[in-house]
Amino acid sequence: MTILPFYVDDIIKTALTEDINYIDSTADLLIPEDSVSSAYFMAKADGVLCGLEVALRVFTILDPEMKIECHFKDGDKVKNGDIIADFTGHTRLMLKAERTSLNLLQHMSGIATYTNKCVQLVKGTNASIADTRKTLPGLRPLQKYAVTVGGGRNHRYNLTDAAMLKDNHIDAYGGITPAVNALRNKAGHMLQIEVETRNLDEVQEAVDCGVNVIMLDNMDCPTMAQAVKLVNGRAKLEASGNVTMENIREVAETGVDIISLGALTHSVKAFDISMKWKK
Amino acid sequence: MTILPFYVDDIIKTALTEDINYIDSTADLLIPEDSVSSAYFMAKADGVLCGLEVALRVFTILDPEMKIECHFKDGDKVKNGDIIADFTGHTRLMLKAERTSLNLLQHMSGIATYTNKCVQLVKGTNASIADTRKTLPGLRPLQKYAVTVGGGRNHRYNLTDAAMLKDNHIDAYGGITPAVNALRNKAGHMLQIEVETRNLDEVQEAVDCGVNVIMLDNMDCPTMAQAVKLVNGRAKLEASGNVTMENIREVAETGVDIISLGALTHSVKAFDISMKWKK
Amino acid sequence: MTILPFYVDDIIKTALTEDINYIDSTADLLIPEDSVSSAYFMAKADGVLCGLEVALRVFTILDPEMKIECHFKDGDKVKNGDIIADFTGHTRLMLKAERTSLNLLQHMSGIATYTNKCVQLVKGTNASIADTRKTLPGLRPLQKYAVTVGGGRNHRYNLTDAAMLKDNHIDAYGGITPAVNALRNKAGHMLQIEVETRNLDEVQEAVDCGVNVIMLDNMDCPTMAQAVKLVNGRAKLEASGNVTMENIREVAETGVDIISLGALTHSVKAFDISMKWKK
Amino acid sequence: MTILPFYVDDIIKTALTEDINYIDSTADLLIPEDSVSSAYFMAKADGVLCGLEVALRVFTILDPEMKIECHFKDGDKVKNGDIIADFTGHTRLMLKAERTSLNLLQHMSGIATYTNKCVQLVKGTNASIADTRKTLPGLRPLQKYAVTVGGGRNHRYNLTDAAMLKDNHIDAYGGITPAVNALRNKAGHMLQIEVETRNLDEVQEAVDCGVNVIMLDNMDCPTMAQAVKLVNGRAKLEASGNVTMENIREVAETGVDIISLGALTHSVKAFDISMKWKK
Amino acid sequence: MTILPFYVDDIIKTALTEDINYIDSTADLLIPEDSVSSAYFMAKADGVLCGLEVALRVFTILDPEMKIECHFKDGDKVKNGDIIADFTGHTRLMLKAERTSLNLLQHMSGIATYTNKCVQLVKGTNASIADTRKTLPGLRPLQKYAVTVGGGRNHRYNLTDAAMLKDNHIDAYGGITPAVNALRNKAGHMLQIEVETRNLDEVQEAVDCGVNVIMLDNMDCPTMAQAVKLVNGRAKLEASGNVTMENIREVAETGVDIISLGALTHSVKAFDISMKWKK
Amino acid sequence: MTILPFYVDDIIKTALTEDINYIDSTADLLIPEDSVSSAYFMAKADGVLCGLEVALRVFTILDPEMKIECHFKDGDKVKNGDIIADFTGHTRLMLKAERTSLNLLQHMSGIATYTNKCVQLVKGTNASIADTRKTLPGLRPLQKYAVTVGGGRNHRYNLTDAAMLKDNHIDAYGGITPAVNALRNKAGHMLQIEVETRNLDEVQEAVDCGVNVIMLDNMDCPTMAQAVKLVNGRAKLEASGNVTMENIREVAETGVDIISLGALTHSVKAFDISMKWKK
Repeated sequence: MTILPFYVDDIIKTALTEDINYIDSTADLLIPEDSVSSAYFMAKADGVLCGLEVALRVFTILDPEMKIECHFKDGDKVKNGDIIADFTGHTRLMLKAERTSLNLLQHMSGIATYTNKCVQLVKGTNASIADTRKTLPGLRPLQKYAVTVGGGRNHRYNLTDAAMLKDNHIDAYGGITPAVNALRNKAGHMLQIEVETRNLDEVQEAVDCGVNVIMLDNMDCPTMAQAVKLVNGRAKLEASGNVTMENIREVAETGVDIISLGALTHSVKAFDISMKWKK
Repeated sequence: MTILPFYVDDIIKTALTEDINYIDSTADLLIPEDSVSSAYFMAKADGVLCGLEVALRVFTILDPEMKIECHFKDGDKVKNGDIIADFTGHTRLMLKAERTSLNLLQHMSGIATYTNKCVQLVKGTNASIADTRKTLPGLRPLQKYAVTVGGGRNHRYNLTDAAMLKDNHIDAYGGITPAVNALRNKAGHMLQIEVETRNLDEVQEAVDCGVNVIMLDNMDCPTMAQAVKLVNGRAKLEASGNVTMENIREVAETGVDIISLGALTHSVKAFDISMKWKK
Repeated sequence: MTILPFYVDDIIKTALTEDINYIDSTADLLIPEDSVSSAYFMAKADGVLCGLEVALRVFTILDPEMKIECHFKDGDKVKNGDIIADFTGHTRLMLKAERTSLNLLQHMSGIATYTNKCVQLVKGTNASIADTRKTLPGLRPLQKYAVTVGGGRNHRYNLTDAAMLKDNHIDAYGGITPAVNALRNKAGHMLQIEVETRNLDEVQEAVDCGVNVIMLDNMDCPTMAQAVKLVNGRAKLEASGNVTMENIREVAETGVDIISLGALTHSVKAFDISMKWKK
Repeated sequence: MTILPFYVDDIIKTALTEDINYIDSTADLLIPEDSVSSAYFMAKADGVLCGLEVALRVFTILDPEMKIECHFKDGDKVKNGDIIADFTGHTRLMLKAERTSLNLLQHMSGIATYTNKCVQLVKGTNASIADTRKTLPGLRPLQKYAVTVGGGRNHRYNLTDAAMLKDNHIDAYGGITPAVNALRNKAGHMLQIEVETRNLDEVQEAVDCGVNVIMLDNMDCPTMAQAVKLVNGRAKLEASGNVTMENIREVAETGVDIISLGALTHSVKAFDISMKWKK
Repeated sequence: MTILPFYVDDIIKTALTEDINYIDSTADLLIPEDSVSSAYFMAKADGVLCGLEVALRVFTILDPEMKIECHFKDGDKVKNGDIIADFTGHTRLMLKAERTSLNLLQHMSGIATYTNKCVQLVKGTNASIADTRKTLPGLRPLQKYAVTVGGGRNHRYNLTDAAMLKDNHIDAYGGITPAVNALRNKAGHMLQIEVETRNLDEVQEAVDCGVNVIMLDNMDCPTMAQAVKLVNGRAKLEASGNVTMENIREVAETGVDIISLGALTHSVKAFDISMKWKK
Repeated sequence: MTILPFYVDDIIKTALTEDINYIDSTADLLIPEDSVSSAYFMAKADGVLCGLEVALRVFTILDPEMKIECHFKDGDKVKNGDIIADFTGHTRLMLKAERTSLNLLQHMSGIATYTNKCVQLVKGTNASIADTRKTLPGLRPLQKYAVTVGGGRNHRYNLTDAAMLKDNHIDAYGGITPAVNALRNKAGHMLQIEVETRNLDEVQEAVDCGVNVIMLDNMDCPTMAQAVKLVNGRAKLEASGNVTMENIREVAETGVDIISLGALTHSVKAFDISMKWKK
């Protein structure tokens, strides 16, 4: 698993504890402890699978003896009706794991699937699809990972690992150039610098002071196209704000390098996957 | 705050740690430590506000001296352009808190707003809107709370606090009646019992053995209407599966008591709220 | 194990850390690291065994290679002198685990044994023995589980999963009926409602407004017998307060459904079990 | 508070989370958020109060604005009917705190009261009353503190901070003397050494090799009296095993320095304290 | 405090728990609970102060009512004999806090002081002093912060926030250029790329494929000087390996941009600061 | 492992999370998931190895299938160039573990090596080398363990497990004798008592009131020699303060029993060990 396994285990234990704070009042009272069952995950829609290792880890945390056979892996396209994985284990423990496992798998596959739709829409252009810091508390690693599984790329992971100058920062120094210089004077040499701009004058100033990335904040497509010409490869350009499935192609065709979308992670539609029990 | 304050603090600290694992490489290097600013939250759409105390707690955890004035409270309807709250504090700390605060506020208000839409659609019928266990890991208390703020009601909180008999449980005893009796024999007296049914025969058996709630699983509306007649108030009826904004009114008009929707919590659309800085 | 295995592991790690915050200054300095020993648990009294898996988990957390053979399981009656389990492992680690393991096993068996005495005393009556929320911090799952192993039933697990209306709640609405109605108006459909009553008038009002359970708070036996008649099966009746080993049979014979005892969990007498080392 | 305040807060948060994992389904739905009430703790028996600061901290964690007036403090003797503390705060939060607070107060006062009974029984002799490592998981600091509040003294806190040689350790070296010497050779200079003995020969050997404390394990009173003579002040003597309220005075009169009792912490009878609401 | 306050609190609570796992067996038994004292921190050497807020937080966590007056702040140069801060509080709690507070203050000031010596040695050259990932478990934020307080700059915070290609990565692609290209193809746009080089050919290849930073690994000064000429500002150059107080000036004069030293954080000499009690 | 394995795991997970809060942006993007490599640890200096099990646990936490062969164990002397351990595992995971593993191994071996140097310097005298409470937050168990691996002995582990009377404590009672008596009156029988002294009068008073250990605080060697004569074996004597590699032999030759050095743990020089990759 790319993500740290003990981080994943912690998320799963938190989720299982939310879902079973004492016993499963149905299964623990009704299902014999040694009862064994088989089941499988089935896709109920077309999309990109993500989170399978995480979802199956929910089962093995409760039942280390589970037998599991996977037919797909993260990043694979699945179609409605595809059997994703078969597994066999203790019925009680499978019943306890089912909901938590699906909640994770559906959320992560939802992100990968939506990201991939965006990636497909900009295919052939210069643009990459990127996420933002608009993530859900505690789930950022899973969400950012799912974006990459869907073919997107990660924006900065957090406030620490790259600088992004916005109004407040720039105003404190009276302009982009003095602010960027002030930052360079103090920052470590591994820090990438991005500046938020709202018009071509600001783009010009930002590229002139040598920042790595320039965000074009809520600009219309013609302006963005001009910014691309103006910058001419001297910095990366990121389109941000008001991007939808409808206009994303048009945005991409302006020549920007990155299109970032908060909706990839803040407005996730669960991807429908069922767990079916074999009789 | 209705939810336990230390649970909320833990969520916030987790989120802030995801977002700032060392320093804010922009604000901590550029904004003077004693700089003070004012800002406000503004609704960018119409909906039901939820999570305001939680969102503001993000600020006060970092800056206990923040001055805050709220113009709305959880459950209030806000309109595009409404100023939700004004606040003044240390610029650096406000910049660090901004994203985490909005992520929480937008998610919780998104749930309350969507729930409320469903509640409005069934107005005048017998039906309540209920959530499910299809929640996101670590966020169940916030999500379930947001459903109630939107006018919905909470289904069981987890596998412990109420019993729900599904296929596996029933099959283990050869039928609804023996399974329910087995459960009653062992369960505590405070345990509510619900049975999942797929046809009217099962509804009949469930009501005859005196369960508290009967889930009508993926039934069509005419069948549900028959179930309502058949049960005639002897148990609560819960419609579940394939309910959409389009058919929810029709479902409600069958006379069921509860309509449960996983989408309330598993497919949340963030409600758009901005933080604006005063110059 | 019915209880979540990672919850149990956390309890054990907390206990081991309390007992060994650095090293075992005797065993780690005196016993060779590769020394191996055998030992067994022996009952020193008659009672109901509970917590064996938990107690043995203390050993395997420290020494995953332990060999263990169990001769009894949770819920079994053991007699003074019975060998409960044999085990072989690294001497040092067994010495480190011994006290923590016994502390858990004796506490849980103490609860199961005492509960079972109560259950035996009411045998043949309608009454079940139930626990309360009078548990020890951090140990509620283990304690509630031990009550069921002893033949008792669990009352509500916590303040979330069922409603219990007491004076404060009722006074806020001016009576049982308006308070119960107010609750029904807001509560989810899976919430069981119990009302505390102190006289037959209140019992009458409670049963009339259709609550699920009525607590008879500190009533004498004749009054409880009248309550049983009055209610006549329309609600469950719970006797609570001043129940002792001496009067529990009399209470049960009033016909109440549940007798709840705080002492099951708040005043536990450890059940005597020794760990003996084989030479 | 003598015990670390953040340790206490953690215990309380754990307990509150066990008791309210989401909301209080009665109080949060029925009591207005701004309702305020007054209540008090009343002793329902005679004994030694312990844990008052801890118990009141449960309230202030939930309601930092509580007004509290204490009439007694830890270590004070209280009588049936005594008002221990008065307090006023938000009704909802007081209802949420009540059970957890009382569970702690009754447990700790139970330990202090029972310890004090033992202390009174040996008054005038040379003997101190000491606890053991037979404590409940997660509660050792609270339990050991309560023993001191009752007038007892603490035995070693854990396996780290003092050495106690038992059979296994002694057998590994072929005798008390070589084992003690081996330990002295490796141990730090701050480590106190105690040896478990079962007869006077072992006592003789232990005192001759200069250990600090000698445990007289399950010896009868005449033998213990002989040990006292034999040792004649060159080491402390600890009586351990089969000590009851009935024979404790006789044990003390043998002249031993310490009488240790597992029951102080492993078989605690809750001390009865009520919370009464003022109308 | 620049570092997250709750991270700092957690470190302090861990340290205090290591140092006081139950009570302070000296102070809690000997010093009256209401005794109040005054004390101060005094520098016992010349250096750069760091960690003062952290060190004082140890006191206020235990005694929120402490009165504190600071005469210096982080980054200030202090001389042997300087009074750093005066404070007054409960004697018992100050005794409990003393060691933990000084341990933190001396460690952080030790880092800042040593870093500052390096910074002074390269003054007037182009070179900055940078730390590495050679930090102590759990202390990275404090250590990296102390480096900046001493005038150094932070290298990448962790493996996530910037890429550093070493042998393994390069070998997997058969060369620097294909490896860098592969990375660019997948990485997010905010990722800075550094390549480790061992000779001028590798430097040439690295600069030609446009990486941001080139590490000169264990090169001698003449080679580094050649690398500086060769690169001519197209990338940043980092000298790494075998840098000592003796040769650091010579390294800096080669013209490199960054000199990174593991010793700043892996071999810290505590800076001597005493706590003196006023009589 | 002598130290609790779950404590060690927690330290490692904390360190890995500091070093990889999301992914390894180099290895996870460049190294194929199934790539396997071999590597080894090599000593780059002469010293005492310590922390090998801990360091290798970093690898197995990430890659439970690692193959490991150790050629040395904790406490062994290693020479520059010695191969300490060979291992084979997944390249990606080994790259992720490398830094954290070495950070631990180098720190612990640094402590053991330095301690051992001190031990060698006092060889043949009566003196033992002891650590202090001047440890780094979160690392005390590892540091204290490393001291013993280097041949030193542990001073008290924390403020709980032994008493040390300093000025404040003594002043509160007006002298050493009344203070020690007050402590004996309250303390448990397993508590060792040490008194800090600054002159021979205080030494005399301390030995006369029968304390276990007397600290000679910053005394010169002739005074310490006099103290040794004066005490004549009735208490242990600990030299403390201003001990260096230069004067430690002289201090030892005064006849003191213990020489304690804060520098063993507060000013650790990392012991140089490399991880080499096999091609």
